[in-house]
Amino acid sequence: MTVSIDPAVAASLRGFEVPEKLGFGSVMAPAMFRARCQDGVWSGGELVPYAPLTLDPAAKVLHYAQSCFEGMKAYRTADGIALFRPDRNARRMAYSAERLCMPAVPESLFMEGVTTVTAYCANLVPANSGESLYLRPFLIGTQPDLSVSASTSYEFYVIASPSEAYHAGNMRVWVEREDARAAVGGTGDAKVGGNYAASLQSIARLKKRGFDQSLWLNPGNRHTVDELSGMNFFAVMDGELHTPALNGAILEGVTRDSLLTLARQLGYTVHERPIDIDDLLQLVSSGTCSEAFACGTAAIVSPISVMGDGDAVYELSAAPGPVAERLRAALLDIQEGRAEDPFGWMVPVEITDLD
Amino acid sequence: MTVSIDPAVAASLRGFEVPEKLGFGSVMAPAMFRARCQDGVWSGGELVPYAPLTLDPAAKVLHYAQSCFEGMKAYRTADGIALFRPDRNARRMAYSAERLCMPAVPESLFMEGVTTVTAYCANLVPANSGESLYLRPFLIGTQPDLSVSASTSYEFYVIASPSEAYHAGNMRVWVEREDARAAVGGTGDAKVGGNYAASLQSIARLKKRGFDQSLWLNPGNRHTVDELSGMNFFAVMDGELHTPALNGAILEGVTRDSLLTLARQLGYTVHERPIDIDDLLQLVSSGTCSEAFACGTAAIVSPISVMGDGDAVYELSAAPGPVAERLRAALLDIQEGRAEDPFGWMVPVEITDLD
Ligand SMILES: Cc1ncc(COP(=O)(O)O)c(C=O)c1O
Ligand SMILES: Cc1ncc(COP(=O)(O)O)c(C=O)c1O
Repeated sequence: MTVSIDPAVAASLRGFEVPEKLGFGSVMAPAMFRARCQDGVWSGGELVPYAPLTLDPAAKVLHYAQSCFEGMKAYRTADGIALFRPDRNARRMAYSAERLCMPAVPESLFMEGVTTVTAYCANLVPANSGESLYLRPFLIGTQPDLSVSASTSYEFYVIASPSEAYHAGNMRVWVEREDARAAVGGTGDAKVGGNYAASLQSIARLKKRGFDQSLWLNPGNRHTVDELSGMNFFAVMDGELHTPALNGAILEGVTRDSLLTLARQLGYTVHERPIDIDDLLQLVSSGTCSEAFACGTAAIVSPISVMGDGDAVYELSAAPGPVAERLRAALLDIQEGRAEDPFGWMVPVEITDLD
Repeated sequence: MTVSIDPAVAASLRGFEVPEKLGFGSVMAPAMFRARCQDGVWSGGELVPYAPLTLDPAAKVLHYAQSCFEGMKAYRTADGIALFRPDRNARRMAYSAERLCMPAVPESLFMEGVTTVTAYCANLVPANSGESLYLRPFLIGTQPDLSVSASTSYEFYVIASPSEAYHAGNMRVWVEREDARAAVGGTGDAKVGGNYAASLQSIARLKKRGFDQSLWLNPGNRHTVDELSGMNFFAVMDGELHTPALNGAILEGVTRDSLLTLARQLGYTVHERPIDIDDLLQLVSSGTCSEAFACGTAAIVSPISVMGDGDAVYELSAAPGPVAERLRAALLDIQEGRAEDPFGWMVPVEITDLD
């Protein structure tokens, strides 16, 4: 690909200084990648200045939430910059798009997008461990038309944000018994906007009660654990690892899959199974469940210290616990290039010279 | 309110000729209403030219579907132009906004928006019966920030489109046994984008099979009828009217409520109750269920001629049936000013002189 880049954007990329205090997803890179699709035909992608989108007021995305997205990171390693398992994100985005009748972004275009942004934004990849350049590919339906049907036109973007981990420190999670983020037969296993909109009310409610994250139950049975709003769930019981089995309502996390692989390699026994919430809370009380943690690209591995359920509060004495710490280190060591990469997860990106 | 209007927009409004063939929601009025809300404080609204919105690429609406909307109509009556029960839409929009942690558009601002657009777009209200000026108020979260939390900034718009009824003629509906548009504890009773995104796959599937609309089952029990993707459901059994009782997953339609009121006034016995899909299909087969129809602002009253379920097809001999026809006429006679308005549903709008 030959990318012609605006000299002003090149200058702002060249001169970018990563702020001391980053937060998550609020500092935006001055460049982004864009491609368009009309009636199923993709145009070539291009790197453009980060600037407001212009969208017709009747664009489908604004009314019918025809949008899906991904979350992934570029890491600074000893040898340069690398992406972590980007093929997984490309495939998951294709799956999400299909669920909402959107054209899949071709894997090659997706890869071009995330690679180009990373290559040009190398200066923006923070150097501190646990920090990285968060990449947000997203796809929106742009056709101006108010009938409830799939858009005929789409725009695909990759924007980037130098970020800290989404949740630093221990988390207090709240068992959500009322609301649901997705339905059986709904969009829970796709990364689409509506799931997140549905979860905002729960998040607002639990924040008032001093909690950080909702623990979502399965919408079908209302008593097994699915996941958190942006992370998958793990528990350690008698030294073994348990995580909810994929069931159509859970997003299949890349971090989840990677931790399962690493855990097996490290010799842990691993169970993917339905986890009943009442059993779980019971096992936390009795101490059999010694650790619980959440995981995701943004959050990495986030220990859970408290689980609230109605008026009851269940404390996990080990937070962060040894298993969470060990898995977090094993994962970050690969992502940040301190350890071998036995699974071929890291995809190096050649840095573009901006001069 | 003093509205200063762009002379070019005034000219295009003045010269607007309603096209012969309208369709639904594709011809847009050249003016729209806009108001903004920052940290819970609303700015005054204004009439502006219909033009692309500029949205930050990280705006919450694009990633987390923080959006809700309304659908209502301005009708041409003998005396001028009138809105139909706009207070209902204002209140429903406030409810939808609250479900997604958005600030409610104050009822006075909502009314100002729909009234102003109607007053200036009087030329665009079609004269044919069944046609009208469709109004689409909508509210979106605009804060550029990638964390999963409610936006701090919002934009409220009212756009307008001279339109035909959404579904003219008889409809073939498809019993959706797999997908769900919303969850128990989800957003089914709010008018938010995610519900419509979730329904696109079903709509695409049924169109391939020669059907027009999905008939959604309750996400909790999967065997009672909820509604269609943009309409409520009615059946006529032994001359009595049956419609699914509100249950938290169904959108409370203004048309549904109005038809229930009219039906009672016309002497029909009316049942709001859970309607089991298998019972319903059985009663269609036996002829006890003589009519079925859908209703909504966009669709008015749309007779259902066929219900498909897997490989089985159930035909309704009377489509349009006499009850549907009678209710449709009673409703349109009020909306288009041919009949008395005993319930005070019509709200006249004073037309703005554009000269
Ligand atoms: C709902 C949900 N579950 C789980 C995850 C974790 O997935 P991943 O590890 O791929 O980031 C995410 C975030 O991406 C998410 O949004
Ligand atoms: C899901 C859904 N159900 C029902 C309706 C009918 O509601 P109303 O009669 O207020 O238009 C609509 C349309 O507005 C809708 O989107």
